[in-house]
Amino acid sequence: MYIKKQRLLTPGPTPLYPPALHAMMASDIHHRTEDFRKAYRSCLADLKEVMGTANDLLMFASSGTGAMDAAVSNLFSKGDKVIVCVAGKFGERWAEIAKAYGLDAHVLTVPYGQVVTPGQVEAALAQEPATKGVFVQASETSTGAAHDVRAMAAAVSRTGAIFVVDAITGLGTMPLDIDGWGLDVVIGGSQKAFMIPPGLAFLSIGTKAWKFAETATLPHFYFNLKKEKKSGEAGESSWTPSTALILALAEALRYVKQIGMDKLIENARLLATATRAAVQKLGLELFSPGSPGSSVTAVRAPAGMDSGVIVKEFKSRFGAIIANGQGSMKGQIFRIAHLGYFDFADLFAMVAGLEIILNANGFPVKYGTGVAAVEEIYERAAVAPQTVSA
Amino acid sequence: MYIKKQRLLTPGPTPLYPPALHAMMASDIHHRTEDFRKAYRSCLADLKEVMGTANDLLMFASSGTGAMDAAVSNLFSKGDKVIVCVAGKFGERWAEIAKAYGLDAHVLTVPYGQVVTPGQVEAALAQEPATKGVFVQASETSTGAAHDVRAMAAAVSRTGAIFVVDAITGLGTMPLDIDGWGLDVVIGGSQKAFMIPPGLAFLSIGTKAWKFAETATLPHFYFNLKKEKKSGEAGESSWTPSTALILALAEALRYVKQIGMDKLIENARLLATATRAAVQKLGLELFSPGSPGSSVTAVRAPAGMDSGVIVKEFKSRFGAIIANGQGSMKGQIFRIAHLGYFDFADLFAMVAGLEIILNANGFPVKYGTGVAAVEEIYERAAVAPQTVSA
Repeated sequence: MYIKKQRLLTPGPTPLYPPALHAMMASDIHHRTEDFRKAYRSCLADLKEVMGTANDLLMFASSGTGAMDAAVSNLFSKGDKVIVCVAGKFGERWAEIAKAYGLDAHVLTVPYGQVVTPGQVEAALAQEPATKGVFVQASETSTGAAHDVRAMAAAVSRTGAIFVVDAITGLGTMPLDIDGWGLDVVIGGSQKAFMIPPGLAFLSIGTKAWKFAETATLPHFYFNLKKEKKSGEAGESSWTPSTALILALAEALRYVKQIGMDKLIENARLLATATRAAVQKLGLELFSPGSPGSSVTAVRAPAGMDSGVIVKEFKSRFGAIIANGQGSMKGQIFRIAHLGYFDFADLFAMVAGLEIILNANGFPVKYGTGVAAVEEIYERAAVAPQTVSA
Repeated sequence: MYIKKQRLLTPGPTPLYPPALHAMMASDIHHRTEDFRKAYRSCLADLKEVMGTANDLLMFASSGTGAMDAAVSNLFSKGDKVIVCVAGKFGERWAEIAKAYGLDAHVLTVPYGQVVTPGQVEAALAQEPATKGVFVQASETSTGAAHDVRAMAAAVSRTGAIFVVDAITGLGTMPLDIDGWGLDVVIGGSQKAFMIPPGLAFLSIGTKAWKFAETATLPHFYFNLKKEKKSGEAGESSWTPSTALILALAEALRYVKQIGMDKLIENARLLATATRAAVQKLGLELFSPGSPGSSVTAVRAPAGMDSGVIVKEFKSRFGAIIANGQGSMKGQIFRIAHLGYFDFADLFAMVAGLEIILNANGFPVKYGTGVAAVEEIYERAAVAPQTVSA
């Protein structure tokens, strides 16, 4: 045990795709040159392709929260009535942004681990026909739960409101038919399924949402959707772009295209399925059994054990960083990530490590039990990948 | 001429410090861990040290424009009277930001190549005692001119207004005694004298400006100075930080500390002095002869020659990217940068290349004339660095 490789196994930042990291070395590039415009154009086009949308795609030098801010500050006006779905920490962030900009928010809150239902959204829309926007997380990273954005979109699209989806951990972990379902704004970030470090955010935006930009009156400058669209069409960004990360993203997107976005999603789904099987086999409880997403699986620590112990021992015993609960869930759950550059070998090792840690902390399990559950899912998927169901 | 190394010789992004690039490879780090907090804390502390200020230092995942936005949206209210100094493209940006946020801006505009004088600022302040803020560029990158921020600060500090200085190309190219002169807000970016790719912005903020944050009413979310101060004190950033760039900056700052900020500034000043000597010896005219800064030297193209020809031939003949004029100056001037990771060998090669390009395009010069001027400055500086004056 003298060598413990550092392994980043969290739901963002996620494990990094090495050729994308290497691409950053070539960032001695000026952003107002044809060389850069070529790279930037291809990056935007590849993102649109893997996201499967004909909508405009805009990119920002910021974390994902910057793109969330951009959607609110560019498309709404003070006092606008909106509906905010809150099923965890990132839902709370939507509510905070709405408050910061003075929107009149109807907040639909459910306990951590649960999801807001399409029915709740539909009822809230019926109650307030003047609603201008509905905000949700496709996948709530803090709990691992996934919202039924398809059904929500169907409800929203029948109204005058736009549907703004934080898909920062949703992209690449769940099918999102942006154009077919009518997802007016879809937000993503670089450090999730796209396998590169944080620092880039992007969003797709469709016709219905663009109309909102025409009449919205909230002030904004750095995040300017209309300006960014015009810049992007010229192959540039409005302000100095995060060149190193854009070159990294271009490289990662080549890999994602080679795999295929549907296969990347299937990869996450298989790992999530196997993780749920393994932890349940070990006698642990899932935190979001009702609507588990494939980006991350939140697991309850055994009764009487602080989940921080599991997180700490992953670091001290195996050099691996896994995620604790966030906010009020800290100490109660730990989270196993699946989004992006994760494979079955990562999961074999993670479940074996978990078995050792549980045993060492007064929660006896039979070594190999959880790993065997993962191996079985692997075998079924390798034989007939299409037939494995959640 | 079969090998032409790519050389980025622009005033931002500037040439990259290789060990800083290599540090980005280790960005498989999670931002809510003690490992990261340690790196982030040391990065903030080192920045404060090299900037020589006891003020708070806040960092953002954004380009420099994001920090400019942050200063306005966090410290002012709609309708506030402010003075904006405009001496080029980046001064115009201050005016645009003020407009976007509904400030009542008194814009002091001078032609590109000139500077706003401290007397103009003083007169404008006297004319409107209710002025809440004064905005300026320490160094106006688009023209190479440097403002007398020390004298301006003296005028502003006698009033109730705060002095907000965009020092994105000023830091590391000119002395800026933030605390001694009373520079209330000083803005910097990663891709300038700090030798790493773009994508990080930061600002220092003092007590007088913090008081403005208490009463300011403009809405904002992503850029939140008060929240960022609290996060920074805990060794974290409010939102997901741009980890790869922060690790790169930490490495570059080690180098800057090793050289010494004063020596880094002297390095730029010597290169600027040598550049002015060389181009004048070649019969070219400086664009800002009255108040030349050391970040970049803007040079007029010879009569009848588009400066774009010089820029293009640097690329095609030598693989080097130099900067054209910006905005209305495009085609009229070219710009030779000095800020950050530039040395005399870069300048020898650049001036030799310039001689060849001028000769090839109908502006005959004697080979070696300009280079000799640079060599002479080098020799004087190497013998007695302290005695070389601009």
